[in-house]
Amino acid sequence: MKQKRIRDYGIIVGRMEPGKENKITDVPGVLVGHTTIKNKENCTGVTVILPGSDNAFEKKYTAASYVHNGFGKSCGLIQIDELGTLETPIALTNTLNVGLVWDALAEFVIRQCEKDGIPVKSLNPVVGECNDSQINQIQKRAVKGEHVWDAIRRAEIDFEEGDAGAGAGTLCYGLKGGIGSASRILEIGGKNYTIGVLVQSNFGATADFVLNGIPAGAKILEQKKEAEKTGEEISVSQTDKGSIMTILATDLPVSARQLKRIIRRTAVGIARTGAYTGHGSGEVMIGFTTANRVPSDQKETLITQTIVGESFLNLAFQAAAEASHEAILNSMACAKKTSGLDGKIYNSLADFLPDLI
Amino acid sequence: MKQKRIRDYGIIVGRMEPGKENKITDVPGVLVGHTTIKNKENCTGVTVILPGSDNAFEKKYTAASYVHNGFGKSCGLIQIDELGTLETPIALTNTLNVGLVWDALAEFVIRQCEKDGIPVKSLNPVVGECNDSQINQIQKRAVKGEHVWDAIRRAEIDFEEGDAGAGAGTLCYGLKGGIGSASRILEIGGKNYTIGVLVQSNFGATADFVLNGIPAGAKILEQKKEAEKTGEEISVSQTDKGSIMTILATDLPVSARQLKRIIRRTAVGIARTGAYTGHGSGEVMIGFTTANRVPSDQKETLITQTIVGESFLNLAFQAAAEASHEAILNSMACAKKTSGLDGKIYNSLADFLPDLI
Amino acid sequence: MKQKRIRDYGIIVGRMEPGKENKITDVPGVLVGHTTIKNKENCTGVTVILPGSDNAFEKKYTAASYVHNGFGKSCGLIQIDELGTLETPIALTNTLNVGLVWDALAEFVIRQCEKDGIPVKSLNPVVGECNDSQINQIQKRAVKGEHVWDAIRRAEIDFEEGDAGAGAGTLCYGLKGGIGSASRILEIGGKNYTIGVLVQSNFGATADFVLNGIPAGAKILEQKKEAEKTGEEISVSQTDKGSIMTILATDLPVSARQLKRIIRRTAVGIARTGAYTGHGSGEVMIGFTTANRVPSDQKETLITQTIVGESFLNLAFQAAAEASHEAILNSMACAKKTSGLDGKIYNSLADFLPDLI
Amino acid sequence: MKQKRIRDYGIIVGRMEPGKENKITDVPGVLVGHTTIKNKENCTGVTVILPGSDNAFEKKYTAASYVHNGFGKSCGLIQIDELGTLETPIALTNTLNVGLVWDALAEFVIRQCEKDGIPVKSLNPVVGECNDSQINQIQKRAVKGEHVWDAIRRAEIDFEEGDAGAGAGTLCYGLKGGIGSASRILEIGGKNYTIGVLVQSNFGATADFVLNGIPAGAKILEQKKEAEKTGEEISVSQTDKGSIMTILATDLPVSARQLKRIIRRTAVGIARTGAYTGHGSGEVMIGFTTANRVPSDQKETLITQTIVGESFLNLAFQAAAEASHEAILNSMACAKKTSGLDGKIYNSLADFLPDLI
Repeated sequence: MKQKRIRDYGIIVGRMEPGKENKITDVPGVLVGHTTIKNKENCTGVTVILPGSDNAFEKKYTAASYVHNGFGKSCGLIQIDELGTLETPIALTNTLNVGLVWDALAEFVIRQCEKDGIPVKSLNPVVGECNDSQINQIQKRAVKGEHVWDAIRRAEIDFEEGDAGAGAGTLCYGLKGGIGSASRILEIGGKNYTIGVLVQSNFGATADFVLNGIPAGAKILEQKKEAEKTGEEISVSQTDKGSIMTILATDLPVSARQLKRIIRRTAVGIARTGAYTGHGSGEVMIGFTTANRVPSDQKETLITQTIVGESFLNLAFQAAAEASHEAILNSMACAKKTSGLDGKIYNSLADFLPDLI
Repeated sequence: MKQKRIRDYGIIVGRMEPGKENKITDVPGVLVGHTTIKNKENCTGVTVILPGSDNAFEKKYTAASYVHNGFGKSCGLIQIDELGTLETPIALTNTLNVGLVWDALAEFVIRQCEKDGIPVKSLNPVVGECNDSQINQIQKRAVKGEHVWDAIRRAEIDFEEGDAGAGAGTLCYGLKGGIGSASRILEIGGKNYTIGVLVQSNFGATADFVLNGIPAGAKILEQKKEAEKTGEEISVSQTDKGSIMTILATDLPVSARQLKRIIRRTAVGIARTGAYTGHGSGEVMIGFTTANRVPSDQKETLITQTIVGESFLNLAFQAAAEASHEAILNSMACAKKTSGLDGKIYNSLADFLPDLI
Repeated sequence: MKQKRIRDYGIIVGRMEPGKENKITDVPGVLVGHTTIKNKENCTGVTVILPGSDNAFEKKYTAASYVHNGFGKSCGLIQIDELGTLETPIALTNTLNVGLVWDALAEFVIRQCEKDGIPVKSLNPVVGECNDSQINQIQKRAVKGEHVWDAIRRAEIDFEEGDAGAGAGTLCYGLKGGIGSASRILEIGGKNYTIGVLVQSNFGATADFVLNGIPAGAKILEQKKEAEKTGEEISVSQTDKGSIMTILATDLPVSARQLKRIIRRTAVGIARTGAYTGHGSGEVMIGFTTANRVPSDQKETLITQTIVGESFLNLAFQAAAEASHEAILNSMACAKKTSGLDGKIYNSLADFLPDLI
Repeated sequence: MKQKRIRDYGIIVGRMEPGKENKITDVPGVLVGHTTIKNKENCTGVTVILPGSDNAFEKKYTAASYVHNGFGKSCGLIQIDELGTLETPIALTNTLNVGLVWDALAEFVIRQCEKDGIPVKSLNPVVGECNDSQINQIQKRAVKGEHVWDAIRRAEIDFEEGDAGAGAGTLCYGLKGGIGSASRILEIGGKNYTIGVLVQSNFGATADFVLNGIPAGAKILEQKKEAEKTGEEISVSQTDKGSIMTILATDLPVSARQLKRIIRRTAVGIARTGAYTGHGSGEVMIGFTTANRVPSDQKETLITQTIVGESFLNLAFQAAAEASHEAILNSMACAKKTSGLDGKIYNSLADFLPDLI
């Protein structure tokens, strides 16, 4: 994928090394697919994160969720919390499409299990969302089942960032937001593991935006003032609202409890971009590990698991913070200037970038 | 509604007085509607609880949720937890229909708000579920949007219990379960308030069933043994799984924090029927009060609320325990003998009742 | 220990088999010790539960805590929740002695670790409490460090129940409460495991008391009325307040998440004795397993753990419910008639028992 | 108090205006007192935050707590969570002194209530802690009851920051940490309110330290390298461990639920100083409002409360983030160069400050 990402501007986030693609798909097995819907009324879509290419329901993933600000509509969290497992792909979409996407995800897994000869009577689809109603006629609920299926079919390693899928219509710090991703490599006990993060960014007031330590939001507001003198309009966001969804994947062998500790640290990455998690910004984190899978058909009474020693988690915490931080900046760097429903033009971070550094 | 309820068998649950109908609709404004789907493949439905007849989104209800066992798919809980408000009717259905029912609920509120001139960009539909897959071909997801709308339209005070709506295909303690309800009157400060509970019962192993202190499950298992001698088959449940949804309504002026304390006590009512909340029995409680409504359009910076003193909550706790206890027994007493997908016949509690007391 | 326990009255709680002693100490390694303080002013004490005879700090126990009603002062819970480990004995005492007992527990572990050559800079003493102020001048904080140390020294398998240690001054359903215990054996995968529970009972309104299905509280209230005719006074409790601490031990190999699910089911045991968990009844559960210990000095980066398959937890849930139920009844059966600070006489359940069955 | 604070170096944190003292005591009624213990073995102490000068037990404060990382020993949180009230001063101390400080706090309130004729049978002392064992012989538990009482007696508006009270022995980002405070003024509905924060800072790896956007930690590490060439030693911290306690006070009329949302945002202030909340850094937040007090003796069945509309909370969130951010920097700016138990010298931020900006 030839997109100009934040590192391509010379901005290095954090101190740890990224993985090969510097995306969530650096975690072996993880794939990401989008369906983007763009027409006169709608600018929205769906993004799916596949934890692996086999049947997630048959061999569940150890997982955790964390609600940082519950002003959001994510589904599937209570079962992740109770059982510590994920049994479907994760889908992201717009706020009012959660129901239809949930249904399509259910349909997909039911069909997949039919093929695989696994009976499904209960299923916990996991759907996250952001509110893209400034660019998208959200009440239309434009995302249909076929879009979810298409996104799953298209899932790949080198996926698009920015205005793709569930990121098509989102805003971040008053600029165009979207899907962004990053990864970090951590060495524990002589072995390398990967932590990857994908975000759907849709939060932040412009004034708060910090670009890797640079008060970029303040600079953009100044440019806006200057531009107004010449009659030009630069759109900004006054209020921190809209939400951010954060998905974390890893191959580090951890328990659900440890994973919850790890995903909580992605909130640090959000804070590093400047926001204080506004009232209207529902922030939800979901994480899974490809280690320690749990068979659906529990014939064995005892399960043997390997987990990392608690005192070695710091590296994972740091990786989570760095990767979510960079993922947000990638979502903004890759997104393009877009016009909203109200006729406003929402700039891309790329429009300002050379001048901000 | 002429149904034979548990009191009609002379069984008095608890010590507090019920309301006029002894249903959740004794709380002024609350209405309940069902759509039941019964055909060769499906025996399922949807039940909606309307907190009031006006627009819930425009004037939100103070609300709380509590997850007793998170092996379930209920939607909308994290926002209730964060903001302490309910802004849609609550819908109950089968496990795999959560998505479509969510979508229909969204559609309903969007249309309602269009009529009322209220812009809706974000919305938190609340959907609960039980797994009715022993009686219903659940993978078909037979409940469609029109069924939800119909249920809302039919919402009434004197609603049906037992095999109606979301209770059409559920089982309880190996017998036929369903929708059940009960209420209690509490006097605080010289004024009467009502606590009403509605359950969708679908849990419990037969052996554990206690009927108001009587070891009814053990007696049914004995009858089963006897029956087998004559070749007759009585279906029972070996395992506590399947879930119970509990909705509590009140007109007591309480805060969201207090309401959470109250709804937790409905778990005591469940325990009094004998179950220990099995691994597979997702138990979720949702509560709201018709007092202390919160306007959607917050023009006023300060809101004045009246709440009951903490030390007076005990009556509400007791009422919650008693009403959920009786609601479960009503769900079983009103449900009728039904045949399952596997050809098994699931008895009604009514079939055993005269002999159990 | 020759005490007349609830089974000695012919009352069999639940369906599962108890362990050899039918106490928490049936879990191999677990020991319980009391120091009881009885003088003119004070009737209180301390009870310690030792998860094993070696150094808990050096090899921590996998543990979980659950707050059923947080109107209580238990210490140490947030670290158990975060890390899933227990690193000290658990001590129970009266409400206002939590601080001094905490300090004594810290002193004990520091000295123990000095002997064992283990540096201690951080330590998480776990202390639970009930309010015994109707029998004990609680503001005196009569429990001192030496009492905690003595209790640890005296820890044994066949410990006393009823008015011992932290149970010396507690009341339960208006009768004398105290320390009670019970255990259950569960077979999983052809192997026997034990779940043991110890309670410090101090809750419940008399009217609510249910003795294994018998409405014992109502009967006691009738006897009180009768007794009053002859001028005799029987003390009862009008309000459910005072708290119950529940400690669960097991040798079942479980994760902290699974253990939390198990200990939540002890609340079912409480509900089976009739209470609805009153506002003033702080109910806290703490559990640990002697399997899956975690070394303090984490040299190994990866830890291998064996845990039981999730779908086999039901037996553990049932055992937790049954053992806590029976533990409460044992606490009451073993406690003796006692006079309170106000001159009131608090009866023992034993005083009523033959007549109640 | 003539101490050089972070603003005195020209560093302006955030965009909101501070209160008069720029301390937690800008919230009318709030007082802070220290007792500092410095001798050959110990360098520790206690800091108390008085929510007001009258009896907190008699008229409780609406309060909330939040556990950001539960690797800590704070006491009193579960009751704050359940009831939403604070009924004692809050005391901060070292990790192993929690028990004795708890006991002293209990004694203080019991005596205070005796004077005021209020019976106390149950009491929830709130104690927080950080681990100062690199400077203080923590196993001695040097803080005794008299120190707590002295700190309460000395409580004042213009209290000391840096190496005072519970901050005497703490480290922050490898430099000397301590007590720090800041405040912000917010205008809602034409009226001014104050949010004040006090921290006990004891966390962070040097490399992570960010000084208002400046990568100060990296610069200090460079200076360390340079210094080593001349044989000089600059102590740094490799690991993020040690904890931070955050106390937030306000006069904004909020519910306990809203207050919890506000105090969660203090974690943003921590993140802005660079840390990712390490495994060993227990981070606990406690907040209270001086509005909406709750009488101990609840004679009134109904209580009328005024709370701020939810959509106006953003200002409070921003204030919480900014004040906690600045409070941490103040704790470091005011602390002085100190030698640890191991002979290491821990620098003050002031030693580096002119060069860092």
